[in-house]
Amino acid sequence: MESFTQEQMDTLTAFTAPDRFSAGQSNRELHTHDISPHSGKLPAGIIWPVSTEEVAKILVWTYENNIPVTPWGAGTSTEGNPLPMRGGLVMDMTRMDKILEIRPGDLQADVQPGVLRKELNRQTGQYGLFFPVDPGADATVGGMIANNASGVQTVRYGGTKEYVMQMTVVLPDGKVIRTGCKARKSSSGYDLTRLFVGSEGTLGVVTEATLRLTGIPEYHLATTITFETLEAASEAVAILIGSGLEPAALELLSVGLIRLMNAEKGLGLPENPSLFCEFHGVSEAALMETADLAKELCTDCGATGFRFGITDNDRAELWRARHEAWETIHRAHPGKETLIVDAAIPISRYPEMVIFSQNLVEEKGVPGYVFGHAGDGNLHVVLAGDPDTPGEWATLEEINHRIVEQAIALDGTCTGEHGIGIGKRKFMALEHGESYELMRKIKDVIDPRGLMNPDKIFM
Amino acid sequence: MESFTQEQMDTLTAFTAPDRFSAGQSNRELHTHDISPHSGKLPAGIIWPVSTEEVAKILVWTYENNIPVTPWGAGTSTEGNPLPMRGGLVMDMTRMDKILEIRPGDLQADVQPGVLRKELNRQTGQYGLFFPVDPGADATVGGMIANNASGVQTVRYGGTKEYVMQMTVVLPDGKVIRTGCKARKSSSGYDLTRLFVGSEGTLGVVTEATLRLTGIPEYHLATTITFETLEAASEAVAILIGSGLEPAALELLSVGLIRLMNAEKGLGLPENPSLFCEFHGVSEAALMETADLAKELCTDCGATGFRFGITDNDRAELWRARHEAWETIHRAHPGKETLIVDAAIPISRYPEMVIFSQNLVEEKGVPGYVFGHAGDGNLHVVLAGDPDTPGEWATLEEINHRIVEQAIALDGTCTGEHGIGIGKRKFMALEHGESYELMRKIKDVIDPRGLMNPDKIFM
Repeated sequence: MESFTQEQMDTLTAFTAPDRFSAGQSNRELHTHDISPHSGKLPAGIIWPVSTEEVAKILVWTYENNIPVTPWGAGTSTEGNPLPMRGGLVMDMTRMDKILEIRPGDLQADVQPGVLRKELNRQTGQYGLFFPVDPGADATVGGMIANNASGVQTVRYGGTKEYVMQMTVVLPDGKVIRTGCKARKSSSGYDLTRLFVGSEGTLGVVTEATLRLTGIPEYHLATTITFETLEAASEAVAILIGSGLEPAALELLSVGLIRLMNAEKGLGLPENPSLFCEFHGVSEAALMETADLAKELCTDCGATGFRFGITDNDRAELWRARHEAWETIHRAHPGKETLIVDAAIPISRYPEMVIFSQNLVEEKGVPGYVFGHAGDGNLHVVLAGDPDTPGEWATLEEINHRIVEQAIALDGTCTGEHGIGIGKRKFMALEHGESYELMRKIKDVIDPRGLMNPDKIFM
Repeated sequence: MESFTQEQMDTLTAFTAPDRFSAGQSNRELHTHDISPHSGKLPAGIIWPVSTEEVAKILVWTYENNIPVTPWGAGTSTEGNPLPMRGGLVMDMTRMDKILEIRPGDLQADVQPGVLRKELNRQTGQYGLFFPVDPGADATVGGMIANNASGVQTVRYGGTKEYVMQMTVVLPDGKVIRTGCKARKSSSGYDLTRLFVGSEGTLGVVTEATLRLTGIPEYHLATTITFETLEAASEAVAILIGSGLEPAALELLSVGLIRLMNAEKGLGLPENPSLFCEFHGVSEAALMETADLAKELCTDCGATGFRFGITDNDRAELWRARHEAWETIHRAHPGKETLIVDAAIPISRYPEMVIFSQNLVEEKGVPGYVFGHAGDGNLHVVLAGDPDTPGEWATLEEINHRIVEQAIALDGTCTGEHGIGIGKRKFMALEHGESYELMRKIKDVIDPRGLMNPDKIFM
């Protein structure tokens, strides 16, 4: 659906306000790209609702008029998750950005979906609390819910799914439901909250969420650990996790990536396969005990350098550099696009997965950087190439394909945290078998007209 | 459906083995009662499958023949959750009790659903690992999954939902699916695993599950804390949790219950409203630090007694007594049945909920004991009465009803951990509103003939 009639535009404007509906070309174009190489189809218009009631009114109307609707957050997704594939209406949630209430006694916050993660943490930080899911990008909470986002601290704190307690959701036909409750636990019927978390806007629009918060750790200790080989580094990961040490972050970086980071940011890191590791705890003494044990385990795995006592400044710089890894790689390959592999496997299989991926990249001779949220078995490989040079891009796709196949063969998943969006749909049948059909049935019963974020998750 | 024909019995026997199907009266009667006052309808027969393949064969046949099927675990449920309400076939899962593999490096175990919780922990304990969900009863893992069971350690470790990674499920028509994966995290489509966890056998039969395990804590410290009033004790709960101290258990006990426990077990506990509290940690020093802080916070709330340095023996005895609270109450009221209230609310509302419940019990003048997994906002009230004396039982029902209504008004839930089963169905519309209809739609699409554990969750 490519354009609205004047009458339709008047209706949409009446649902909201003159400055909250646009059929202008630049706004429409802005909503056809996230940070992935995918692109959407030009939507007919963009609407910026500010309340559940407005969202409900809009969806009643789009349902009646058979108009596709694609919810939009910060646009920081990496698999084309919020791109309108059939035109229609893009529902930009960024003006529903209120923190409705922080309830420190309950360790909870009620928020609208357009709240940015960093702003949320600024506000909750006043109470010594934080929302610990950190995907790097300053995503909206709604986008994080849609994608079940996770990141560097998920190894200790869990992903978005573990932090959503209650949601207000507007269903594709405009009906408003509330899922879950605000009690810490419940056994009351089907867990609709966790059905909607990770559904990428294909089942409805989240307009309010109650998030669980947790205490900001009093002490943290960052370490960098270097190894002679990537194999040794990844084996240390499996051993550290298996030992139950519970790091708050455990990142693997291959030497190629470290070199780029040093070159761009002058970090002066040893140019060896490395782990960035952080521990959180109740006292410095407890942290030092943990770090000593980690050092011992890593030394047994052949670690050659172990640096702790990193200052707060250096620590912040280190994590900033890690968070910007993708941008750094991008900048190092001007004119190229990147394809991000995002597989996850059980931790004992992490070393073989890392080596498999590294060897594959070397064998294919393309620019490729192996790293990842190693502690929770999440492996990223960023590959750089030109989408307009078919052979070149096909090689990248082949590498992605083979890594995903290997991850699934090892009881893992085709996406640890980026979601299915457009790019991973081709792996769904392989990963889920008959379960994929069951997902489709659930989609069809909730969205019988197939209007919500169409052509995502499903082919 | 009250009985099978000889041909049907021959078929069911052929699916399994002569000693694994029974239409004998005593076996059928054994499967009409769990530990609740509810009773089921006499099933036509019981079958004990030993493999996914057998379960699939049986369900293909029951589906074709329109025969209701009710899965059965250890029978330790408290809301009639596994009672056959339309006769038919009871599928007793207790012979699928193998631990298939413990993978300590992955912190995971693959199990069949009939494995008992305590046996699982005996086996995983050899690797320093445990499955930390502790509902007290020695339930089967399958029953715990069906109910999303939780218990005394959920305040720190979470409930069953947080520990199930992958499942093999046989759908009502006999189709076998696998949900989830064995990676620590995934964003790959709809979370079917968490849709099935807590669905009480109404969507299919779980025949295999991969469970996450966690390290057995090296140090633990148990404390009992006494207060002059129940109000002060419950306020201390809210303060302890809000402070982020992360107890591994935090139980509230009213004086009436403490008296019964002392009388039956000679525990010699001070007969005051009390908290049983436990901390887990990496060193004794860290634990003492935490306990000191807890003492300070409790003293500010008016605690009058604080006992730590409890020996391992006393600790075990204390928790055993707490786990047996329901049996103790039962034995103290011979000839009576018990009705167990199981509400949960956000922690800041815990004090008012406790006082509301205590006052209601006193006002109605029935035997009633207020206690609960206070740390996660879970409140139990055990009420004793005679189901055959209509006025007496109606008073118990009224108390339950009013406490649940209050919990829902406080953004809580009608069941923190016992599930809906038969007894809580009447609260579902009140708690979930339009979401209840969505649950029904999902039930209908997965079980269109309504054969799986009929008349549970839904009216």
